[in-house]
Amino acid sequence: MTDESRPPRATAARLSLYLRCLEGWLRAGQQSASSHDLAQALLLGDAQVRKDLAYLGGLGRRGVGYKTATLIAAIHKALGIDREWPVVVLGAGNLARALLRYRGFKDRGFRIVGLFDSDPHLIGQKVDGQEVFPASELRRRVAETKAEFGVIAVPSESAQEVADTLVKAGIRGILNFAPALLRLPKGLAVVNVDLTIQLEQLAFQVLAGAE
Amino acid sequence: MTDESRPPRATAARLSLYLRCLEGWLRAGQQSASSHDLAQALLLGDAQVRKDLAYLGGLGRRGVGYKTATLIAAIHKALGIDREWPVVVLGAGNLARALLRYRGFKDRGFRIVGLFDSDPHLIGQKVDGQEVFPASELRRRVAETKAEFGVIAVPSESAQEVADTLVKAGIRGILNFAPALLRLPKGLAVVNVDLTIQLEQLAFQVLAGAE
Repeated sequence: MTDESRPPRATAARLSLYLRCLEGWLRAGQQSASSHDLAQALLLGDAQVRKDLAYLGGLGRRGVGYKTATLIAAIHKALGIDREWPVVVLGAGNLARALLRYRGFKDRGFRIVGLFDSDPHLIGQKVDGQEVFPASELRRRVAETKAEFGVIAVPSESAQEVADTLVKAGIRGILNFAPALLRLPKGLAVVNVDLTIQLEQLAFQVLAGAE
Repeated sequence: MTDESRPPRATAARLSLYLRCLEGWLRAGQQSASSHDLAQALLLGDAQVRKDLAYLGGLGRRGVGYKTATLIAAIHKALGIDREWPVVVLGAGNLARALLRYRGFKDRGFRIVGLFDSDPHLIGQKVDGQEVFPASELRRRVAETKAEFGVIAVPSESAQEVADTLVKAGIRGILNFAPALLRLPKGLAVVNVDLTIQLEQLAFQVLAGAE
């Protein structure tokens, strides 16, 4: 994929939604799909979907649509999940345990290569087959495993410190579960999964709907 | 708050971000804050922040800004988190355990009043002080506890079935952790926390940044 054809971020977000639809359809035995099918399923405009899919190259044939599997593979490539990403996880509590057992992690090529905690009771223990290391080992392990992503699964008080350690270790992207706004260098990829915000927005939606 | 002054959804999303900032500032001892401070911290325009905060009523004084605590309370009210929301959780696995221990849940007024699973080995057990009930008890317990939210923390194959059960039980809002697009009646509030999508977007950002 060349620079020119790399989709903008809003398109990338919709590609994730198309992928979710297409995978469901493929599991249900649907071998082909059109941009119109996707537009209908996701309540988007046909033109919008066609424009988004154009970033994937000329995969469809007019009047026939796309092979579901081909479209899925093209979206995987565009999003960068057609390869393996070594990941380190900081914090070995319940959230980390849930993530370690989360199928989607592996399905998307995210392979956990290190689990870290500062609790001396946890260090050396195994959590779902992963040994817990002290944070002091992070830098060495990131270098050894060529880990590119870090997951922050620690309480919010420790989140910035952990983020700084990840940055120093050379991590390129952070998935942050702590409800904290992190100060990070420009250019570092970060996705915040702040459950508190999701809860707030849910409460707001219920209130708004009730009026 | 009247109908006219209820903020649109995009404003509500930003109110959550303002809240995160303001709470951090208050913890750090900062007793007052201006729309300019928030704009700077979140890389937003001053006019945007002022317009958003206007939905909270005339709280600020020109040149002085807002009392941090007053602004926090006003945002809590606008988002609907100045009250308690009884919540049922479906699925008693690792994710549910992480949620039960998640401070933000309680901090935002979400009180878990029922935990449900279909696994006969889990039913009757206690998870973080919460007894696990069979799904057949859901309807009765939702009625008894007046639960308004349901959290879906089951594998994606069971997500739609669980969602249907929640809707029948009279739930008004759903927080869905399963990577599945749910078919839900119009008007029901739903927030999807699809970790797979977050991972995809993170991979995309790292790729895009690398070019």
